[in-house]
Amino acid sequence: MKVGIIMGSKSDLPVMQDAADILKVLGAEFEITVVSAHRTPERMFQYAKTAADRGIGVIIAGAGGAAHLPGMVASITHLPVIGVPVKSSNSIDGWDSILSILQMPNGIPVATVALNAAKNAGILAAQILATADPRITENLKAYKEDLKTKVEETAQEMESAFSSKVDSPEN
Amino acid sequence: MKVGIIMGSKSDLPVMQDAADILKVLGAEFEITVVSAHRTPERMFQYAKTAADRGIGVIIAGAGGAAHLPGMVASITHLPVIGVPVKSSNSIDGWDSILSILQMPNGIPVATVALNAAKNAGILAAQILATADPRITENLKAYKEDLKTKVEETAQEMESAFSSKVDSPEN
Amino acid sequence: MKVGIIMGSKSDLPVMQDAADILKVLGAEFEITVVSAHRTPERMFQYAKTAADRGIGVIIAGAGGAAHLPGMVASITHLPVIGVPVKSSNSIDGWDSILSILQMPNGIPVATVALNAAKNAGILAAQILATADPRITENLKAYKEDLKTKVEETAQEMESAFSSKVDSPEN
Amino acid sequence: MKVGIIMGSKSDLPVMQDAADILKVLGAEFEITVVSAHRTPERMFQYAKTAADRGIGVIIAGAGGAAHLPGMVASITHLPVIGVPVKSSNSIDGWDSILSILQMPNGIPVATVALNAAKNAGILAAQILATADPRITENLKAYKEDLKTKVEETAQEMESAFSSKVDSPEN
Amino acid sequence: MKVGIIMGSKSDLPVMQDAADILKVLGAEFEITVVSAHRTPERMFQYAKTAADRGIGVIIAGAGGAAHLPGMVASITHLPVIGVPVKSSNSIDGWDSILSILQMPNGIPVATVALNAAKNAGILAAQILATADPRITENLKAYKEDLKTKVEETAQEMESAFSSKVDSPEN
Amino acid sequence: MKVGIIMGSKSDLPVMQDAADILKVLGAEFEITVVSAHRTPERMFQYAKTAADRGIGVIIAGAGGAAHLPGMVASITHLPVIGVPVKSSNSIDGWDSILSILQMPNGIPVATVALNAAKNAGILAAQILATADPRITENLKAYKEDLKTKVEETAQEMESAFSSKVDSPEN
Amino acid sequence: MKVGIIMGSKSDLPVMQDAADILKVLGAEFEITVVSAHRTPERMFQYAKTAADRGIGVIIAGAGGAAHLPGMVASITHLPVIGVPVKSSNSIDGWDSILSILQMPNGIPVATVALNAAKNAGILAAQILATADPRITENLKAYKEDLKTKVEETAQEMESAFSSKVDSPEN
Amino acid sequence: MKVGIIMGSKSDLPVMQDAADILKVLGAEFEITVVSAHRTPERMFQYAKTAADRGIGVIIAGAGGAAHLPGMVASITHLPVIGVPVKSSNSIDGWDSILSILQMPNGIPVATVALNAAKNAGILAAQILATADPRITENLKAYKEDLKTKVEETAQEMESAFSSKVDSPEN
Repeated sequence: MKVGIIMGSKSDLPVMQDAADILKVLGAEFEITVVSAHRTPERMFQYAKTAADRGIGVIIAGAGGAAHLPGMVASITHLPVIGVPVKSSNSIDGWDSILSILQMPNGIPVATVALNAAKNAGILAAQILATADPRITENLKAYKEDLKTKVEETAQEMESAFSSKVDSPEN
Repeated sequence: MKVGIIMGSKSDLPVMQDAADILKVLGAEFEITVVSAHRTPERMFQYAKTAADRGIGVIIAGAGGAAHLPGMVASITHLPVIGVPVKSSNSIDGWDSILSILQMPNGIPVATVALNAAKNAGILAAQILATADPRITENLKAYKEDLKTKVEETAQEMESAFSSKVDSPEN
Repeated sequence: MKVGIIMGSKSDLPVMQDAADILKVLGAEFEITVVSAHRTPERMFQYAKTAADRGIGVIIAGAGGAAHLPGMVASITHLPVIGVPVKSSNSIDGWDSILSILQMPNGIPVATVALNAAKNAGILAAQILATADPRITENLKAYKEDLKTKVEETAQEMESAFSSKVDSPEN
Repeated sequence: MKVGIIMGSKSDLPVMQDAADILKVLGAEFEITVVSAHRTPERMFQYAKTAADRGIGVIIAGAGGAAHLPGMVASITHLPVIGVPVKSSNSIDGWDSILSILQMPNGIPVATVALNAAKNAGILAAQILATADPRITENLKAYKEDLKTKVEETAQEMESAFSSKVDSPEN
Repeated sequence: MKVGIIMGSKSDLPVMQDAADILKVLGAEFEITVVSAHRTPERMFQYAKTAADRGIGVIIAGAGGAAHLPGMVASITHLPVIGVPVKSSNSIDGWDSILSILQMPNGIPVATVALNAAKNAGILAAQILATADPRITENLKAYKEDLKTKVEETAQEMESAFSSKVDSPEN
Repeated sequence: MKVGIIMGSKSDLPVMQDAADILKVLGAEFEITVVSAHRTPERMFQYAKTAADRGIGVIIAGAGGAAHLPGMVASITHLPVIGVPVKSSNSIDGWDSILSILQMPNGIPVATVALNAAKNAGILAAQILATADPRITENLKAYKEDLKTKVEETAQEMESAFSSKVDSPEN
Repeated sequence: MKVGIIMGSKSDLPVMQDAADILKVLGAEFEITVVSAHRTPERMFQYAKTAADRGIGVIIAGAGGAAHLPGMVASITHLPVIGVPVKSSNSIDGWDSILSILQMPNGIPVATVALNAAKNAGILAAQILATADPRITENLKAYKEDLKTKVEETAQEMESAFSSKVDSPEN
Repeated sequence: MKVGIIMGSKSDLPVMQDAADILKVLGAEFEITVVSAHRTPERMFQYAKTAADRGIGVIIAGAGGAAHLPGMVASITHLPVIGVPVKSSNSIDGWDSILSILQMPNGIPVATVALNAAKNAGILAAQILATADPRITENLKAYKEDLKTKVEETAQEMESAFSSKVDSPEN
């Protein structure tokens, strides 16, 4: 099974690229394309209707403004759909993107991540595929370990930088 | 030409009924039904695709929460679409409904009215049909005159109520 | 019938120009000028009062901050009025413009579009005039087809760009 | 000189009555009526245009939702205008009323008070008339003294209520 | 694999019960308990650390106010975590719950659903388990079909109710 | 009588300068200084307590963030106080400044103007002094006339610019 | 040293009482009274100026709307001041109270707690006094242990209630 | 006793450095490091669990976005915890940081300061340590005096700058 990454407009690519990048790190396959709920509604229907049969196991959909793509795709497929609110130029600080993806009615969930957080969407997609793929589970554990190590290194740097500078705190 | 009134859920009817009522007053024909973008996406497609051919000239669509119905219908038909944000029970004070209807991307407008303002949606639909139907124009003018008269009557009442009560303002 | 485009200040022109541009594309006539609700209230009255008789069929009004122009024009004329909230320099992220245009009381609708979305205001105006002008309907259909084609081309580009780059996803 | 109190709808009276009540306490004359910017725009024009000549020195205007009455009256008269945002039933928690009254463009101020704070509008109107009427100044000083006395009495009550109850705080 | 449902406080149960109910409908096993990030941090650690080994495949965590439970659990386990923002009594209209669950930093996703939408959390959990369990996939498809049928029945009712009442729309 | 202009910090001067400038245009005397509610509370008390006796008739107070200066000054003096919310660097888009100036409790009004609208504060102060000074009334009328003339000139420019460019709108 | 609890109005007592109650539990002495920044500014000055000398070690100040009491007290005393935003009837969902207490300028901190969270203000005050009083530290540890025990009991109840009900989850 | 300053990420250092700087001015000892609630949860646990025994008397924790660090540390230690909402790049104008730090449930307070106000966090920490250290009290008094002097100097500058420029205000 692979991840299907879609976005409402080519201008969302700089944000959505992060999903593709982390999926490579975590060893999950994916495909990526543009599907606009508003400008190509038939194409969106087709995409969502056939996704499961084309081997897609989870869909990541990013969109900005009145972002209908994630919710509409979720209404058509039975696969889990992850929504990425994109802070596009026509957005009101991202509130419109967030609320039109998050506030789905009962019956049709969209797994919403933080504003512009395509990287987290990628990790979440990998976590979902890991349910049936232990190799990805191992990659996720290693990734988590790596996050920890980096913080610990930063902590050490900061502590020594300050301990040399701050010998006599009240002068 | 007539007005097509649709709503995402039967629970929106108490709000959306106002559109039907004012359209009767203004002499515009309409039909009304439930079409859910999320639970019946095919039905929504069918509705929007065939609306113009079935004699509909303008569509009023009401929905709450992550309200995708007005925008998705507008993406399929070339007719003008009026969106009514409904403050449903699952809504965050109506902000989600407003933003997911209003903030449509360039190319696909939705004529948004105030929160729960199905009555104004009905008047706007009548104004649009009046472009080709002078009879409705006359009804709109009469309606406007009526609004004015009612305020003037209220004003007179209030002025006499206070002038009798307030003869000596500083006691 | 033509479209009347007005704005509260010359500084709104960079935004409002989009309405004029798309109306040319869609083959609808228009006129354009500055009318300030707050600095020229009599002029605004005059404009709205005489609009229908001067051959205007729909009015597009853009304004920022406490944006009273669209609502006041709608209170005077029986024509449909489209409001464009403009994110002007004195606006609080556009919220003030949006709410003072959108939240009109019952009886006086304003067809509100997204923040700065003068292009969508132009398309909506064309949709309204198309009620009585089949030539504009044809232009709207062609425009919609064009939007679709552009997305499909972008999709193809993105798919081939990624399929060449991503042959081995977990490296 | 007297205060002119106006409101957009009779339903605003329970809020706006507070302005009348405090003006009586402070010894300032007033008149009160309904003027709707949206349903009776000509009446509003007439009211604002003639206010100064009818002996009005300051205008208090209350309205809810897309509240245009205070700003439009301020655009027509040179008198100071006080705006009262009313949290009407069609308002989004009052944010629409506040922003459409407060965020006036440069050149046309409206002296905005808190949501539903018609009492404060009345006090402010009295402070303005007091500029030319020392009798009102004396009433304002007495009112301020009275506010202070009431708090001091409440404080004494609370202190003795707690001092008898709380003799042994840590049990 | 089963679903672990946890909540910050017993007072969240009326909301979170919906997750349990829909999981029964969709044929997914679950366990349910109270785990407070703030009052029982060690218990939370223990829960998250051991979840995968106890046969849990996905965790649903609901919390209100400054809702740290979903994010903290996600920081400890490598399993997918679904967050349910609960509009508890100490919440500011739910905004605090939503933002403290949704806005997780890069590296640690939480799959956020709508305010109080525990039902959608349950459906999403089932979609995730369905990745490795075709029986749940069939249940999800049946559930989706059921949603559609109910809307179509409602639509028919509304259409006949109105067609009998509205034979002569402009009277 | 003159206007007292105060601000919480020297960094507010670029905004507050507008009040001084328009007061010169309108022929009203003023004095200007820095008074910080938080860093110089005694100074603030002294300023407010003695303002009326020093010939000040109305106070303009500008502040940002948790802006307590206008409200505290209003609590001490019986003079009308105009509050200017300043969008300072430590402000959350100005919302904090607006709400902490606007939402004063009953009994202590502050006449609040738009965010950064020190110019409008100056005009409002002049309108208040004009209650007792007909010379300022004349200046206000002239200023209003001037605003109108400038819009009309802009309108003419825009109309001729477009009429020459747009002779054949649908090409 | 004891805690000084003050509030802007007697109507804040139902909220602020929680601070007194938890201070008794934690064995910290306190006094309580009404001090209004806006109606009794001199009294507030006096209170803050003399607090340290009267044996007060930390001040808890609660207020609603444009809540200036905590910040003004903090500007006068060098003691730590805890602010409780109160969701009073004249507040906009508590946002005004929160922002006017929280967003203090550099130099004058207020330790802000959650909306209506007087209980947490009491605990925080006890934590501060515990810096110099090990007896309170012991009480705080016991209180924390107690919170934990209560959650664990609730958890056990919920687990057994569900395990008896849910033996066969998919029926 | 000393102050423990922690932050969720090295990128918070430019903001959090202000806490260290003012603590030096006020003569309070501190240590500083990076502790991430989400990337190093065990490290956070360890830090909070052992803080009191390592001689820390108060903790300052800064974090952005869904900021769980201050609240989680407060849930583990009995020491007072000061939270600094950081407006990080992934934050929605800081609202997410503020609400996820401020809105802690009853039982677990976090002393929240303004957005990015690490300087105020430092002053507050010093005020807390001053409860048991009169030397810091003296430094706090001197600091307060210094704030006052600087404002008074600025005031004098501004007054003379304007008095020389504005001799004849209405010309």
